[in-house]
Amino acid sequence: MDAMMMDAMSKDMMSMPGMESMDMDAMQACMDACSACEQACTVCSTQMMDCAPACMNCADMCNTMMRSMMRMQGMTPAAMMAMLDACIAMCQVCMDMCMAHADESPVCKMCAQACQACMDACMAMKATMATA
Amino acid sequence: MDAMMMDAMSKDMMSMPGMESMDMDAMQACMDACSACEQACTVCSTQMMDCAPACMNCADMCNTMMRSMMRMQGMTPAAMMAMLDACIAMCQVCMDMCMAHADESPVCKMCAQACQACMDACMAMKATMATA
Amino acid sequence: MDAMMMDAMSKDMMSMPGMESMDMDAMQACMDACSACEQACTVCSTQMMDCAPACMNCADMCNTMMRSMMRMQGMTPAAMMAMLDACIAMCQVCMDMCMAHADESPVCKMCAQACQACMDACMAMKATMATA
Amino acid sequence: MDAMMMDAMSKDMMSMPGMESMDMDAMQACMDACSACEQACTVCSTQMMDCAPACMNCADMCNTMMRSMMRMQGMTPAAMMAMLDACIAMCQVCMDMCMAHADESPVCKMCAQACQACMDACMAMKATMATA
Repeated sequence: MDAMMMDAMSKDMMSMPGMESMDMDAMQACMDACSACEQACTVCSTQMMDCAPACMNCADMCNTMMRSMMRMQGMTPAAMMAMLDACIAMCQVCMDMCMAHADESPVCKMCAQACQACMDACMAMKATMATA
Repeated sequence: MDAMMMDAMSKDMMSMPGMESMDMDAMQACMDACSACEQACTVCSTQMMDCAPACMNCADMCNTMMRSMMRMQGMTPAAMMAMLDACIAMCQVCMDMCMAHADESPVCKMCAQACQACMDACMAMKATMATA
Repeated sequence: MDAMMMDAMSKDMMSMPGMESMDMDAMQACMDACSACEQACTVCSTQMMDCAPACMNCADMCNTMMRSMMRMQGMTPAAMMAMLDACIAMCQVCMDMCMAHADESPVCKMCAQACQACMDACMAMKATMATA
Repeated sequence: MDAMMMDAMSKDMMSMPGMESMDMDAMQACMDACSACEQACTVCSTQMMDCAPACMNCADMCNTMMRSMMRMQGMTPAAMMAMLDACIAMCQVCMDMCMAHADESPVCKMCAQACQACMDACMAMKATMATA
């Protein structure tokens, strides 16, 4: 999400019932990592290697995760934590499967890296919420 | 998912790495409940009541959950459990918000019922996996 | 979409700017066919046969088509016609690719049938709009 | 889609049955514009202004459009053209509705701009395909 979009969003959009404020930098980084991971997984799934079903699962979960962070008014801290855990778990599965043939396929290598980055961003997001 | 489709799926499609077999009845019921919940939430979100962002979040999560159950080859028991937890948490948020004005809006009432049914189906799914 | 959900929707939800009323039977049939086609394509895409990318494209298009019919307030007749044409074109591609190996795979056969049914329902929907 | 991802994709991924080669610069620009438009529409839809249903429709269509360009093996020129027309039509509806209250809401203004940019990118994509 670019800077213009982040600026246009009001403070109301940046908070959810049960938590007064969010770490906007962590959230923007997380949304971007989800978007990049969705794209990498979508490309990777077309290779018809054995990672394809995991890539499709991961692409959908990352898109759902990203969109949910853009609709914080309809979240709670508990639901956000559960969603982040699910996204982390799904990225882990996809990363493991793609990493297994990263040497054969540059797309799988790229996909595994995007999964790792998405996991890291989701974990950073969880950390900022835990200390809020 | 109709009976013809379930029959067409091979045994290979019904299992995931780390778990030999799934309870097909529970899974079919869960996929159907996710699909119905996505539809109810999508309709409900157009009312522009305060539940709308939660409904959009829930619709996306339910669709992702349903699709993931159709792509078990790319799941693990841990990821499935985390996804089910996220779906349950998201349905809870949406149900609570819609139930708050179920008296005013028959669509919100229907949406809350679909969320409850989806939560129940996800919990039943978790139970069958825990005993497998 | 079940009867309870259709009943709960108000008349306002059933019309869009630029067209006073829609044929609700045709629309319900079309939403159901889109939903069934999304499911069939999602299952079919996990087989890792050469139809998989077309199945993934078709699953996403059918879901987008279904949801758009549930959000008529945000459509126009021109946009609806263009979406229906895109859905028909995408189902045609997927059906052709799946039909090519329908003899080898019962899932591909089922998927091709779901694509055909979805195309038919979209064409019926276009016909009702053209005469409205 | 970043440069690393584009580079990782093989030539095979960049073509579809019925068209030997695609204009990769136009395609990358179009995928990026679709992604940005999906994000802007998702944010805009949470404002619960009268554009919300159009924004939700447009977000889904843009995501489907973007993903389809990442899965060219499962497309044909005819289907791609129909999808681009549907995306353009949907962006037009959303832009018109958001532009109507661009003065009141900076988010609507941003969303309308993202819709315009997405339309332009889809039209540029059509132009490159027509001359191929």
